[in-house]
Amino acid sequence: MADALGPVLERLWQTILSRRGADPKTSYTAKLFARGTGKIAQKLGEEAVEAVIEGVRGDPARLAAESADLLYHLLVLWAATGVAPEDVAAELARREGRSGIDEKRARDS
Amino acid sequence: MADALGPVLERLWQTILSRRGADPKTSYTAKLFARGTGKIAQKLGEEAVEAVIEGVRGDPARLAAESADLLYHLLVLWAATGVAPEDVAAELARREGRSGIDEKRARDS
Amino acid sequence: MADALGPVLERLWQTILSRRGADPKTSYTAKLFARGTGKIAQKLGEEAVEAVIEGVRGDPARLAAESADLLYHLLVLWAATGVAPEDVAAELARREGRSGIDEKRARDS
Amino acid sequence: MADALGPVLERLWQTILSRRGADPKTSYTAKLFARGTGKIAQKLGEEAVEAVIEGVRGDPARLAAESADLLYHLLVLWAATGVAPEDVAAELARREGRSGIDEKRARDS
Repeated sequence: MADALGPVLERLWQTILSRRGADPKTSYTAKLFARGTGKIAQKLGEEAVEAVIEGVRGDPARLAAESADLLYHLLVLWAATGVAPEDVAAELARREGRSGIDEKRARDS
Repeated sequence: MADALGPVLERLWQTILSRRGADPKTSYTAKLFARGTGKIAQKLGEEAVEAVIEGVRGDPARLAAESADLLYHLLVLWAATGVAPEDVAAELARREGRSGIDEKRARDS
Repeated sequence: MADALGPVLERLWQTILSRRGADPKTSYTAKLFARGTGKIAQKLGEEAVEAVIEGVRGDPARLAAESADLLYHLLVLWAATGVAPEDVAAELARREGRSGIDEKRARDS
Repeated sequence: MADALGPVLERLWQTILSRRGADPKTSYTAKLFARGTGKIAQKLGEEAVEAVIEGVRGDPARLAAESADLLYHLLVLWAATGVAPEDVAAELARREGRSGIDEKRARDS
């Protein structure tokens, strides 16, 4: 069940927020913030490439590990650009009303 | 707070699981499953490219929307390859012990 | 030999340049120009994802086809952002002096 | 003119071929071959992410530099998976007959 993800994402989010403004020498997250949204977006893209590759290979353990890296960098990018997790939750909730092929059609149009 | 994400991801996960084996003509998710992990991974990569672009642009509303698409396709890829959300939660929890620069060093080695 | 690529890339480049300002309804290239560099960069990213996937699969015929799509969109992006092929040739030539591990070190620093 | 690219790509291709089987300690290219197609494809994906970002930013000098990295890793992936540059040239030539919207339609179908 995905509800195991909620609490750990919440803790990760709070940790990420606490690193904003911290000394880049002491924290990888603080270092990312210091390098700016372009660099964070680049890291997100790189982790996505790795997740894509493990998905194509069909390796669940490595896909889980790459997914964790992907989610971490995604949350850092949210924090750096002013996206709140609630905003993404609202986007996902908005799509719940529409489903299947209809949802896809709405997305394509 | 990120805890808004937990419940909606849980509902999304259950919906995705319920579409496995459904008629591809009636559901976009069922259509993705029918096309296989390669195609799902490709869609994940495409959504990641869009999230990267919105991150570079620094557009929070569009990044939130692209993040929702990214998370949806990530969960479909998990379902298609046999990754449970708990596996990813466990990976994230495992990293909580290590933090900052030390975590990065461990990841690079 | 890669010298087969030179003439066809030259013709492709001239075709792409000739489509700048053309009616978007009559040419896919003109349509890309009309949509702007963000959309062209997105298409480049999507084609790269497909090339990555075919590379991981080790399918030479499909990698060749995806590479053609990748090169086409790369040249359109050059034309849209003001990069001349000579600029890229100069970058490649500049790296010829340095090679192997030394080149990599220079790139990383 | 893109014909400046042909000769330098030809030299790059010959250099890459000469590194197959070389000692990974002495050459970055040999090291890539030793790590396999998955790793080379990953590097291609990472360079593509950087090219996408510079395209979105509209920075011609940095896009030219990232494009050189992208082309280099693309050629290494060709060499590692058995794609000849002529194969890609043939794909590009095949598309010359079709153009504009018609080409796109053929690609989508």
